[in-house]
Amino acid sequence: MAISPQLTVRLEDVRAARERIAPWIHRTPVLTSRTADERMGCRTFFKCETFQRTGAFKARGAFARLTQLTPEERARGVVAFSSGNHGQATACAARELGIRATVVMPKDAPALKLAATRGYGARVVFYDRAAGEDREAIARRISEEEGLVVVPSFDDDGVIAGQGTLALELLEEVPDLDVIVTPCAGGGLLSGVTIAARSIRPEIRTYGVEPEAGNDMQLSMERGEVVTIPPPRTIADSLQTMAAAQRTLDILRALSAGILTVSDLELRRAMAFAAERMKIVVEPGGAAGFAALLHGKVPDTAGRKVGVVLSGGNVDLALFGELVAGL
Amino acid sequence: MAISPQLTVRLEDVRAARERIAPWIHRTPVLTSRTADERMGCRTFFKCETFQRTGAFKARGAFARLTQLTPEERARGVVAFSSGNHGQATACAARELGIRATVVMPKDAPALKLAATRGYGARVVFYDRAAGEDREAIARRISEEEGLVVVPSFDDDGVIAGQGTLALELLEEVPDLDVIVTPCAGGGLLSGVTIAARSIRPEIRTYGVEPEAGNDMQLSMERGEVVTIPPPRTIADSLQTMAAAQRTLDILRALSAGILTVSDLELRRAMAFAAERMKIVVEPGGAAGFAALLHGKVPDTAGRKVGVVLSGGNVDLALFGELVAGL
Repeated sequence: MAISPQLTVRLEDVRAARERIAPWIHRTPVLTSRTADERMGCRTFFKCETFQRTGAFKARGAFARLTQLTPEERARGVVAFSSGNHGQATACAARELGIRATVVMPKDAPALKLAATRGYGARVVFYDRAAGEDREAIARRISEEEGLVVVPSFDDDGVIAGQGTLALELLEEVPDLDVIVTPCAGGGLLSGVTIAARSIRPEIRTYGVEPEAGNDMQLSMERGEVVTIPPPRTIADSLQTMAAAQRTLDILRALSAGILTVSDLELRRAMAFAAERMKIVVEPGGAAGFAALLHGKVPDTAGRKVGVVLSGGNVDLALFGELVAGL
Repeated sequence: MAISPQLTVRLEDVRAARERIAPWIHRTPVLTSRTADERMGCRTFFKCETFQRTGAFKARGAFARLTQLTPEERARGVVAFSSGNHGQATACAARELGIRATVVMPKDAPALKLAATRGYGARVVFYDRAAGEDREAIARRISEEEGLVVVPSFDDDGVIAGQGTLALELLEEVPDLDVIVTPCAGGGLLSGVTIAARSIRPEIRTYGVEPEAGNDMQLSMERGEVVTIPPPRTIADSLQTMAAAQRTLDILRALSAGILTVSDLELRRAMAFAAERMKIVVEPGGAAGFAALLHGKVPDTAGRKVGVVLSGGNVDLALFGELVAGL
């Protein structure tokens, strides 16, 4: 299948993003595990964005977007809204590039993510996720009042191109992958990965995985329009999106990406497997793709080569211990 | 300084071991962390043997030794004695190579290590570490009774050459390292690494790190003879050696490797840093080298390039949660 001509992000954009962000980010390792292969009946290749700068793939998108800013925009500064990882990533990229950053975060964001965002020198403004406050509206108001450039976490072509860079690396190491599975919140990662991977290898299938309680992308794909859900209750704090964007929905529909869901218990089991057998600390949301594969939810993987994106590892250690114990 | 001519293991032995084990083991990633660099004031390069097959560097030595066996020896089978990681590694290598394996393990070995050893199909024979039973004597008795080849965990040139292979990989990625820090129990890893690294880069310094409670190698180096200590009480189950071997002591003295010690609390802090900031599950003993660096115990590292061997990650998750929480 050819890549749809109306896509606003194309392989050359992903490649250009990769050039721009190369000085700043890690090329993360692709790890294999015979134990995982035996358990899942396929050949697995784990793209470990847990070891990315700021502990999550979000550094790719943030650096990709911020390196696109004009000198005048850089001078004004940026504002991001994020449950945590995109905020950290924007704060980190802004500091490295000498840009002032403001991050709008939920007041119940994990302490680790809050501390890291502040540690990078960003100003933090809180909102109440449970009360349904609109973080994007808050960010846009701050943007207007202070002249800051908004850096969306997924509804942005530059960010999507940045996230797609991990697929370039993964396919360089494993050119004949059959499937890639990633976590999915707003769909920026899945969009970038799908564009890059399908452009290089048209027969590859991609799947994004949401928490069962937060399946707004699955509903949106089914209905063909952006569906908004109440704030989802899930341990996957990084996947608590209430609505995708028209931009990511259009990309995922055009390229027929699949959307799957997993329960919190399945997330915990995947986290425990990653920790015990692979020695990797993965945060709940970061384990969503792996959880779907581990529980046999990804179609037609038997004997296939499957890329699994472990997208982040930012989880408080005490919570981590609770989540992986006693399963 | 030239490598002492009387060494029984030489760079060419390490290179030969690498050729033999290449089909079986992982080339583990070398990860960097700006957070770690800022905290420690040097440039750190983490050689992550946590991601090695069987979850620890011991796979290198076990495959190196077992691939040296004659067809007749292979047919007889092997026996190893180990607190856990060497037992798993020998069991894994034996299974892959179609050899019967018996492993003598302490009866209080971590459940995870015991299960993994049995999972590889090895027969397990227990001994009582606290009562001072001599595991090596038990293994040698079984060897004599059943005609099995003993595979020592460190007192063996083939095993030492195998462990040294990780230094070849590390120096290929970072040729201008100034220092390498590893955990130290019987000294097999430190011996292999020191031989390989000093042969390639004579000015490099190497340090092995023991638990304070189990500093038999430090005492042995000071006194110039193998010192035996009571069973050490430490959380580092993989570093509870009571005596080094003349073989490793001779190598480490000839090459002037340094021996340092860390407390259990320092091990826990290093484990927590690795988990929280680097997303890596490291077992207590596997964090010893890192713990020494993190606590400023490694001489003359300011501004230097320091290789840190995270040697293993086999720790029960419940224990892991306890050790890294509440520091």
